[in-house]
Amino acid sequence: MLQNDLLLRVLRGEKTERTPVWMMRQAGRYLPEYMVLREKYGFFERCQTPELAAAITLQPVDIIGVDAAILFSDILVVPQALGLEVQLIESKGPILPNPIKTINDLQRIRIPEVDETLNYVFDAIKLIKQELNGRVPLIGFAGAPWTLLCYMVQGKGSKTFDEAKAFCYTQPELAHQLLQMITDTTIAYLKGQVKAGVDVVQIFDSWGGLLSKEDFETLSLPYIDQIVQALKEETLVIIFAKGAWYSLKEMVATGAHGLGIDWCIAPQIARQFAGSNIVLQGNFDPAKLLSPVPVIEQEVKKMLKDFGGHHHIANLGHGILPNVSVDHAKAFVNTVKEYSLVSTE
Amino acid sequence: MLQNDLLLRVLRGEKTERTPVWMMRQAGRYLPEYMVLREKYGFFERCQTPELAAAITLQPVDIIGVDAAILFSDILVVPQALGLEVQLIESKGPILPNPIKTINDLQRIRIPEVDETLNYVFDAIKLIKQELNGRVPLIGFAGAPWTLLCYMVQGKGSKTFDEAKAFCYTQPELAHQLLQMITDTTIAYLKGQVKAGVDVVQIFDSWGGLLSKEDFETLSLPYIDQIVQALKEETLVIIFAKGAWYSLKEMVATGAHGLGIDWCIAPQIARQFAGSNIVLQGNFDPAKLLSPVPVIEQEVKKMLKDFGGHHHIANLGHGILPNVSVDHAKAFVNTVKEYSLVSTE
Repeated sequence: MLQNDLLLRVLRGEKTERTPVWMMRQAGRYLPEYMVLREKYGFFERCQTPELAAAITLQPVDIIGVDAAILFSDILVVPQALGLEVQLIESKGPILPNPIKTINDLQRIRIPEVDETLNYVFDAIKLIKQELNGRVPLIGFAGAPWTLLCYMVQGKGSKTFDEAKAFCYTQPELAHQLLQMITDTTIAYLKGQVKAGVDVVQIFDSWGGLLSKEDFETLSLPYIDQIVQALKEETLVIIFAKGAWYSLKEMVATGAHGLGIDWCIAPQIARQFAGSNIVLQGNFDPAKLLSPVPVIEQEVKKMLKDFGGHHHIANLGHGILPNVSVDHAKAFVNTVKEYSLVSTE
Repeated sequence: MLQNDLLLRVLRGEKTERTPVWMMRQAGRYLPEYMVLREKYGFFERCQTPELAAAITLQPVDIIGVDAAILFSDILVVPQALGLEVQLIESKGPILPNPIKTINDLQRIRIPEVDETLNYVFDAIKLIKQELNGRVPLIGFAGAPWTLLCYMVQGKGSKTFDEAKAFCYTQPELAHQLLQMITDTTIAYLKGQVKAGVDVVQIFDSWGGLLSKEDFETLSLPYIDQIVQALKEETLVIIFAKGAWYSLKEMVATGAHGLGIDWCIAPQIARQFAGSNIVLQGNFDPAKLLSPVPVIEQEVKKMLKDFGGHHHIANLGHGILPNVSVDHAKAFVNTVKEYSLVSTE
C-alpha cells in the first residue's frame, strides 16, 4: 500500500485533498547530488546500473518532496534495444552514427526480446520500488514511436527533424513499418515495466508538435493509440505530446487517463479542447523557475487557479532546466502542496 | 506602377484572379546562385553592400518566379544599430559576445539615427526597386522586439531562450525599457524602409511562440502593436509570430493587414481563431518540400483548398530549408499559380 497515492487517485478520476505534483526531469542536472554521480559515471552506465538508476530516481523524492518518482532512464534505450548504436555526448545531445535511411538500414533492425535487452530497466524498477518502500508511486515511461523515429532517422537532435520528415514523406511504407516495429517493442517494454512494478506510464512525444495536425494524426497518434490500448487496462497512462495542442481531443479518444500539456496552451483553453473529464498535467513554463521565489509562488498559484483544482497534476510544461536552483524547484513543489490544500478545502 | 500587384491587392482585402505566392528565406542557401555569393562575401558584407543585397533579393524573382521580392537582410541589423556587436558564424548561428544582462549593459545601448546606421539598407532598397523595375512588390521587414530581446539578452540562439525569459521575469522594468528602445528603433527603421520604397513590411516574431499566451501579450504583442499603429497608415503590414496561434485574435486587433501562420495550425482553425476578414499567409511545412514533386503538388493543392481561395497569401510556414532542391521550390510556386488560377475562376 502506498502512503501517498494522490497521483494515482487523480488519474483514476477521484477528487483528492490536494493537487499532486512532480516535475519532468526532476532527477536531473539542477540537483548537486545528481551532478556528483554524473561526474563519476557515463550516461548509459547510470541508466544500466540498477543501483545508480535507483539512487538517482529517489533523489528528488528525498530532496524536493515530489508526489511521484519517475524512473531514471532515457527514451533512446528503445532504439538501442532495436539494434541501433546510440552515443550520448552530454553537451551535444544524442548521436546515432548509423541512422535509418533506406530499406537496407531497416533490415538491420530487429524486434528485441525486451526481457533480455532491457532487463536492466526492470531490475532498476524492482530496486526502486523496494527503496521507495511505498512512499510515493513510481512512473515508468517510453518515447512515442514518432519521436523515436525522429532520432533513428535524423541520427541526432534537430530543430526541424527535416530528414526524419523527408523519410516519412518519400518512403511512407517504410516509415510505417519502422513505426510499427518501435510500437511493438514499446508495448512489450512498457508491459515489462508494469510487471516490474511501475504504477503509471507516461508516453513522451517530444517532437509531436513539429508535425501538422494531419501528419500528427497519421505518423504519431495511431501508434500512441496502439500503446494506450495495450496498456490502459493494466496501468494508468499519461500521454505528453509536446506542442500538439491541436489534437488534444483526439488524444482523449485513446482512453488515456491523463494528458500532459505545455505552457503554450492556457489551462482553460486546454480544458475546453480536451473536455471536462480527462486529467490534465502541467504546465508551468520551466524558464519561469528562474524567476525570484515570490514570483514563482504567485505564478504557481495562478496556474493552480487556472486549472480549477480538480483533474489536475501539477508539473512543468517540459523538463526542468539545469540552471534552476534547488530552492526554486522546492518553491514550485511547496506552493502546489500548500496552496492547493487550502484552495480545495 | 507594378506589373504584378497580386500581393498588395490581397493585403488590401481585394479578391484576386489567383493566390499570390512567395517563400520565407526565398533568397537563401537552397539557391546555387546564392551560394556563389555566399562563398565570396561574408554575411554582413552581403547585407551591407547594396549591390550584393540587391542581386540576392532578385534571385528568387528571376529563378523561381515568386510574386514578391523580400529584402535580403537580417533581423540582427537592429541590435547592431543599437550598439551591440553581432557575429554571424554561419554554421553556428549568431553570437552577441556582450549581451544585455544588467542595467549597466542597458546603458551601453543607444537609440540610433537610422538614417546613419542603417542607411545601407535604404540604399539597397532603392537599388532593388530600380532593378525590379515594377515586376513585383518588395517586402521589407524587421524582427519583433521580443525576438530581438531574445538574442540581445541570451547572446546566441537557444531552444528555450531561458536566460532572455529570466531577464524579463527578474527585471521586468529593465526588460520593458529595452523592448521600448528596440520598438522605437524598429519604427524609425521600418519608416525608413517605406520611404526608400518597400511596398509591404513583415514583422518576424520568430520566438513569440516560446511564450505563454499571457507572456506573449505582455512581452511581445504590445510592442508589435506599437509598430503596426505607426506603420499601418503608410504601408501594408504582416505580422508573423511563429507558434503564437493562441493570440491570433489579439493580433487581428492591431489592425495589421495580414497574419503569417505556421503549419502547426490547420488553415480552417486559423481562420476560425482569426475571423473571416484578415489575410492569412502560409503555411506549408518547409520539410514537406523534401517530398517527391507529385506529393508536393498534391499537398499544395490541399493547402490552397483548406485556405478557401481568398484572403490568402501562399507561403511556407517558416523559412525554406537549405537542403530543398530548386525544382521542388519551383513545384511549390508553380502549383500555387496554376491551381489557384483554376480553382478561383
